[in-house]
Amino acid sequence: MMLDEAQVKPHDRLASRLADDMAAVNEMIAERMASEHAPRIPQVTAHLVDAGGKRLRPMLVLAAARLCGYEGPYHVHLAATVEFIHTATLLHDDVVDESGQRRGRPTANLLWDNKSSVLVGDYLFARAFQLMTETGSLRVLDILANASATIAEGEVLQLTAARDLATGEDTYLKIVRGKTAALFSAATEVGGVISGAADARVQALFEYGDALGISFQIVDDLLDYGGATAAIGKNVGDDFRERKLTLPVIKAIAQADTDERAFWTRVIEKGVQKDGDLDHAMTLLDRHGAMVATRVEAVAWAEKAKAAIMVLPDHELRDMLHDLADYVVARIN
Amino acid sequence: MMLDEAQVKPHDRLASRLADDMAAVNEMIAERMASEHAPRIPQVTAHLVDAGGKRLRPMLVLAAARLCGYEGPYHVHLAATVEFIHTATLLHDDVVDESGQRRGRPTANLLWDNKSSVLVGDYLFARAFQLMTETGSLRVLDILANASATIAEGEVLQLTAARDLATGEDTYLKIVRGKTAALFSAATEVGGVISGAADARVQALFEYGDALGISFQIVDDLLDYGGATAAIGKNVGDDFRERKLTLPVIKAIAQADTDERAFWTRVIEKGVQKDGDLDHAMTLLDRHGAMVATRVEAVAWAEKAKAAIMVLPDHELRDMLHDLADYVVARIN
Repeated sequence: MMLDEAQVKPHDRLASRLADDMAAVNEMIAERMASEHAPRIPQVTAHLVDAGGKRLRPMLVLAAARLCGYEGPYHVHLAATVEFIHTATLLHDDVVDESGQRRGRPTANLLWDNKSSVLVGDYLFARAFQLMTETGSLRVLDILANASATIAEGEVLQLTAARDLATGEDTYLKIVRGKTAALFSAATEVGGVISGAADARVQALFEYGDALGISFQIVDDLLDYGGATAAIGKNVGDDFRERKLTLPVIKAIAQADTDERAFWTRVIEKGVQKDGDLDHAMTLLDRHGAMVATRVEAVAWAEKAKAAIMVLPDHELRDMLHDLADYVVARIN
Repeated sequence: MMLDEAQVKPHDRLASRLADDMAAVNEMIAERMASEHAPRIPQVTAHLVDAGGKRLRPMLVLAAARLCGYEGPYHVHLAATVEFIHTATLLHDDVVDESGQRRGRPTANLLWDNKSSVLVGDYLFARAFQLMTETGSLRVLDILANASATIAEGEVLQLTAARDLATGEDTYLKIVRGKTAALFSAATEVGGVISGAADARVQALFEYGDALGISFQIVDDLLDYGGATAAIGKNVGDDFRERKLTLPVIKAIAQADTDERAFWTRVIEKGVQKDGDLDHAMTLLDRHGAMVATRVEAVAWAEKAKAAIMVLPDHELRDMLHDLADYVVARIN
């Protein structure tokens, strides 16, 4: 039996619609991650690339460019660029988080070592930079240079603020813009820019990517306190064990009484965790409606994303981007 | 008593000649390493920047540009760019090498943690990328993107080849081009490019930087088996303890008898080192003339650097670059 159009996930519909472009992107990724001199590089990278990320970021570039009527060829370079930047940040994140699992497989820093993760990440950044330079668009370079700085700044901010109970929602938003939304919004924005789209359309694409990225990250934070391992490729409670102050926790702390505050201080600030603490944390998140309030914010950002692209011309890809925003939050339904 | 011109080190003469430009570079570095959101960033960076590296790479950019008659302003951006790239690689190297000392001070990864070193390095790469984009020169971006990829590739190659006794001088040269010469040659080359110099002059500047960088690294390798701590800001025997196959060792291994080969296998490949091993290694390096042969190569590369710039116009800065090449090898006299 064929599936109804509506039953196919928006992400898969995009992948199907952009299949030819994505094949070109995958080919370029394979070609550019090779290294004549250092075979360790494709080994480490292939481990991540083959693990089959959703290729969401490159698809955003392709969708934005095609939606603006672009006929190529540089949308392919830019799609490969954002995937390289994303993969590089994953490699460095795993060193920073001391993670053991990513996308359901052991992380590169466990399979090889931290050194390989750091240096191969640097190599991918450099390769990304070469790819975008080939487009010859200084405006594209400017956008991606700024996004790269915002990403690194967000990561450092997370490092210093993550275990500080005084961290509020403003700081959380800055961190999320850095760690997730900056690359989403750069992806959609450069898709528009490379197409020569009018400023209002480029701005709409930027706002869509920004809001989608924020929604995506908030949902990820929620899933960490309740999704299944299979669905997200990481373990429930990872953020808790890594003592990250994510949005549900920030909201629960804002409502905490003295005992609860002592609990959060112990498990997050001091990092003293024992059996049953994760369950207790989840109870507190429910008690104060922190999970529900966080979900409301995720939905609001998805709505903002959908509204932003209404200024773009009526187009099959616009509809898919619209549905994608719904799908991002549907993961928590 | 005033010092004779000839008694002042070439590096200091360059610094004096380029003092106004260097002041502008230092100002730009201070301004651009700031972060509104993440104060950890300037803390980590300032620790390295204040430690007073010789600022050799930015001076190469400035000297090349001024020698080609450039009047500004983008030589300042490019000088700051190469210093940021250099500082970023130092931060990542310290994670990779698990170093405890750099420029005579504790490394950032000891003072803070590996995480900060990785992420602040990423931030500086991104800032470097922003600075060079501001120059608006796609050719400059292309050169620096390629150099960045070569640097990362050389570092990964070093990681995988460093403890393999089969590593020969060809591989060593690739590693050195990556870890040192790529940024030297990019520095002098972009100085020429930003000035709009003719191709032959740009090529000469590239060759000068390449040969100077190789000479510089070979001398560093030599000093590691005989320089004073104060002179090089690291400890004698660091490379030995980190089991790096540097040029003197590669030459000694090529001449090794069975017993000596067993020694090198134990201390480098297996990493089993005990008291007296460093002294024994130094004896072997002398016995086979490996130190002398390595020094001959360092001098030959310095001569190549000096010869390369003879196609450039007669100029006070050309003479200083000439003397700088001599000075690099004079460190081992």
